[in-house]
Amino acid sequence: MKEIRVAVVGASGMVGRTFLRVLEEYNLPVSEYVLMASARSAGKTVAFFDREYVISELTEQSFDSGFDVALFSAGGSVSKQFAPIAAAKGCVVVDNSSQWRMEPDVPLVVPEVNPEALQNHKNIIANPNCSTIQAMLPLKAIMEEWGLKRVIYSTYQAVSGAGLAGYKDLENGAVSYLDGKEQSPQKFPHPIFSNCLPHIDVFLDNDYTKEEQKMVNETRKILGDDRIGVTATTVRVPVFDGHSESINIETHKPFEIEDVKKKLADFHEGMVLVDDPANNKYPLALDAAGRNEVFVGRVRRDYSIENGINLWCVADNIRKGAATNTVQIAKYMLEHGML
Amino acid sequence: MKEIRVAVVGASGMVGRTFLRVLEEYNLPVSEYVLMASARSAGKTVAFFDREYVISELTEQSFDSGFDVALFSAGGSVSKQFAPIAAAKGCVVVDNSSQWRMEPDVPLVVPEVNPEALQNHKNIIANPNCSTIQAMLPLKAIMEEWGLKRVIYSTYQAVSGAGLAGYKDLENGAVSYLDGKEQSPQKFPHPIFSNCLPHIDVFLDNDYTKEEQKMVNETRKILGDDRIGVTATTVRVPVFDGHSESINIETHKPFEIEDVKKKLADFHEGMVLVDDPANNKYPLALDAAGRNEVFVGRVRRDYSIENGINLWCVADNIRKGAATNTVQIAKYMLEHGML
Repeated sequence: MKEIRVAVVGASGMVGRTFLRVLEEYNLPVSEYVLMASARSAGKTVAFFDREYVISELTEQSFDSGFDVALFSAGGSVSKQFAPIAAAKGCVVVDNSSQWRMEPDVPLVVPEVNPEALQNHKNIIANPNCSTIQAMLPLKAIMEEWGLKRVIYSTYQAVSGAGLAGYKDLENGAVSYLDGKEQSPQKFPHPIFSNCLPHIDVFLDNDYTKEEQKMVNETRKILGDDRIGVTATTVRVPVFDGHSESINIETHKPFEIEDVKKKLADFHEGMVLVDDPANNKYPLALDAAGRNEVFVGRVRRDYSIENGINLWCVADNIRKGAATNTVQIAKYMLEHGML
Repeated sequence: MKEIRVAVVGASGMVGRTFLRVLEEYNLPVSEYVLMASARSAGKTVAFFDREYVISELTEQSFDSGFDVALFSAGGSVSKQFAPIAAAKGCVVVDNSSQWRMEPDVPLVVPEVNPEALQNHKNIIANPNCSTIQAMLPLKAIMEEWGLKRVIYSTYQAVSGAGLAGYKDLENGAVSYLDGKEQSPQKFPHPIFSNCLPHIDVFLDNDYTKEEQKMVNETRKILGDDRIGVTATTVRVPVFDGHSESINIETHKPFEIEDVKKKLADFHEGMVLVDDPANNKYPLALDAAGRNEVFVGRVRRDYSIENGINLWCVADNIRKGAATNTVQIAKYMLEHGML
């Protein structure tokens, strides 16, 4: 493989720092990394590959020196402004914001699921929403064999999805609660410790949250079939790291539940079946934290319809839900001569 | 109303103590309360109605003195042994265990939902499982107008459902985690702080947990229709008090979503619609703790099928899920000349 020049945009945030760890682990053949951020963070240094990198300021000239790929994780407004600039300079942008995901000419990719979408792009590739990414692996596996008719998500999402401020709300909330004091959340609209908030991102006109609508829209786009019925209820829970999801599935074709488990176990090394109830083994957020794989278990027949499945899916939302998937997209493109 | 003589069996446990608080609040016309428990707790005193009550030992002779009603909350084995003895002495047992729930001649009752089931009994009435009770109110309301075809539950259940030991696991787990130490759960099979356990009660041969199977079976019995498709994924979350539930519903008849909200708001004073997303108002476990009502919100059309509804339902699992519903059953029977 050729060596590439890589820009990391938004290296100072919580997701950005995990990007650096994942890039170290994947150790792609890179001749040079340049870390960029807004003026506020420019000049800071971060540890990366055993040396200190100085973060440079992201400007309209940042991509003039020629990059093969830029990994963006700096929010929607930064992506909106700078991704087209980078793309116009010939740099492939893999963007972790929601800014470009539903654009028709922007591939929305989970590499284990729909890498073929990377064949046609205009230098902007979108990384899906965290809660969507992890569900795609079991859903694609099942879809391949039995077809997908309908998917119902109920999520149990970690506070790390709301960044460092989400972390602080849970940590401070737990301390306050255990001291017998009122919680004083700064990030969430309500206390998060000892509570479940059925509210992630803003509310839309149809009374869904934007997070719920993302799961509906992105599931269909990634799986490439708008006829799949999808609905979602997304919930923030008092968990630091790792999203869990209760997924109810209706397939087109009949199945044996043992065949479903086997398919999930064999689908891809990126998904691990953890399904041994007799020994209290099932996917857990605490176990998934720090891991790059998607974990799936509690696979059972839903007896309320002819072809129904219940399952439980867990992944580290900052890794597979963001940084890992983004790096995997770049790795796939590199290995397939797309960069 | 006549004055009645009431036995409270299992007054020393966590649910038992809440029973006493709820009995104080409802202040039924009772001539005498006798508090009973196993030999281990007998002799202890508890504060009740502004005086100290001594807990007497539960024996085969305990009901010889003649009681109108006995509220049992001492676990399945105590109910199995002593409920028939009390019943044979002419005492109506309202039992909070799962021991008798699915017996054909035992009414399983949520007073706002199926009080008619109280017409025929053999002196044993069963209080449903906590996670089932709260869901019955919105489901019955919707069933009355549009019929119920299918229900899919995903629950977010508080540790108080596992008693004081569950409380301790969350409290100690949070302290350990915040100190950077390993959690050492005593009650749950895995750490509960910063985690979600898709495992409540024991696993059955069909890979459902008993809690999940209870929700399936009890929903049908209470709503009086075995044709309703029901499935469930039940999950323990790091919340001290109050179960939350994501409920996906398919009705037989078409509806306008605003009519569904109106029906839920008007159904019964025991259910409160909290559904004002624009002002971040929806049911929350922290708000439901200590309350006797069921709270419902996030009511939305599920666009993935023709007649689909998503909603979010929260209640205090020790109150409406146990003590309150039990006391309400006794109150209903008293007010309707059934005692």
